[in-house]
Amino acid sequence: MNPVSIFPVPGLPEIVNGASLATLILDGVQRLGLALEPGDVVVVTQKVVSKAEGRVRSLEGVVASPRAIEIGNRIGFDARHVEVILSESVRIVREAPRVLITETRHGFICANAGVDRSNTGGREFVVLLPERPDESARRLRESLRERSGVAPGLIISDSFGRPWREGQVNVAIGAAGVLALRDYRGQPGSGNRSVSVSLGQLAGRVGVGPI
Amino acid sequence: MNPVSIFPVPGLPEIVNGASLATLILDGVQRLGLALEPGDVVVVTQKVVSKAEGRVRSLEGVVASPRAIEIGNRIGFDARHVEVILSESVRIVREAPRVLITETRHGFICANAGVDRSNTGGREFVVLLPERPDESARRLRESLRERSGVAPGLIISDSFGRPWREGQVNVAIGAAGVLALRDYRGQPGSGNRSVSVSLGQLAGRVGVGPI
Repeated sequence: MNPVSIFPVPGLPEIVNGASLATLILDGVQRLGLALEPGDVVVVTQKVVSKAEGRVRSLEGVVASPRAIEIGNRIGFDARHVEVILSESVRIVREAPRVLITETRHGFICANAGVDRSNTGGREFVVLLPERPDESARRLRESLRERSGVAPGLIISDSFGRPWREGQVNVAIGAAGVLALRDYRGQPGSGNRSVSVSLGQLAGRVGVGPI
Repeated sequence: MNPVSIFPVPGLPEIVNGASLATLILDGVQRLGLALEPGDVVVVTQKVVSKAEGRVRSLEGVVASPRAIEIGNRIGFDARHVEVILSESVRIVREAPRVLITETRHGFICANAGVDRSNTGGREFVVLLPERPDESARRLRESLRERSGVAPGLIISDSFGRPWREGQVNVAIGAAGVLALRDYRGQPGSGNRSVSVSLGQLAGRVGVGPI
């Protein structure tokens, strides 16, 4: 096994709708004195991808339904925020003070359907998850390939809480050009059932977008 | 932020009861042409620590209780294995074919209370989690300090499944000399609630034991 190195990519600006993430990432990599190489994996946080894709909603334009108002009152949340969460969800898994755990249209079980009101450039805005994260990853990978000649692995990550554990971890919600699951079942010398290890797939170096 | 590098430590032998992990790890680091440096973090898998601590049980010596036999029949598991799982658990969270999700005495919610029958050097043996993983981490860190003059951060990891998601990830079950949780609440420019990021704490380089 080879060592893996992780480089935070510096200097990315506030991302606006339509921004070319590929250009910004390649500029950041260049500022590191590096260039993308075959086997590299680029990790970009969901919020950056969402903002570039215009997945930002102003709460001012949202009309909360009676159901959203009722839930918002119960959990202590802005009803318009709840309305957006519900519009992104197929079911509510759990309701608790100041958090709704839902299943998103993508099938993710996570807090507030990933609809985030923090770091949105203004308290009246929320940022939604990308509509099709694997597709976003594929497109960004393709843009990087066009501009650099190298198609890196591409992971879109988001912070998820973990049931029964404190804190949050970054989870891949979309990927292109990387093996998301490696199946060790039946391999000699290993009785583990299955292992999801992005690391197992991270050859060489890893570029990390703004966290 | 600085880059982080992850080095698998090669050449560790099958670990036996009483083995000096500190010596084996330092030998492995030396084989890499490296030496521990301040800020390094050593990650060791649970199984290695457990084996060195003699947390291995022969199923031949285990007498299954009626309850273990009943559960074993229901989920298709060796009743003696179930007996050991129960002895390590304070409650059963969920029962399913070929798996028991329990809460361990440590408070971990995980499959089979971490009692593992794979890679145990024989089908009649099971490996249990360390009794006190934080304490094991502290001791190993201290041994490394005594032998190398450097006290690295020390993480004991184990593979956990994740509810609602495929695959397994490595989770810290014990740690010494590293900040396990970083609290971002109330910090300007970040609305995230809290984030558990070993990476946030991993300065310089990371040594990884056998996976």
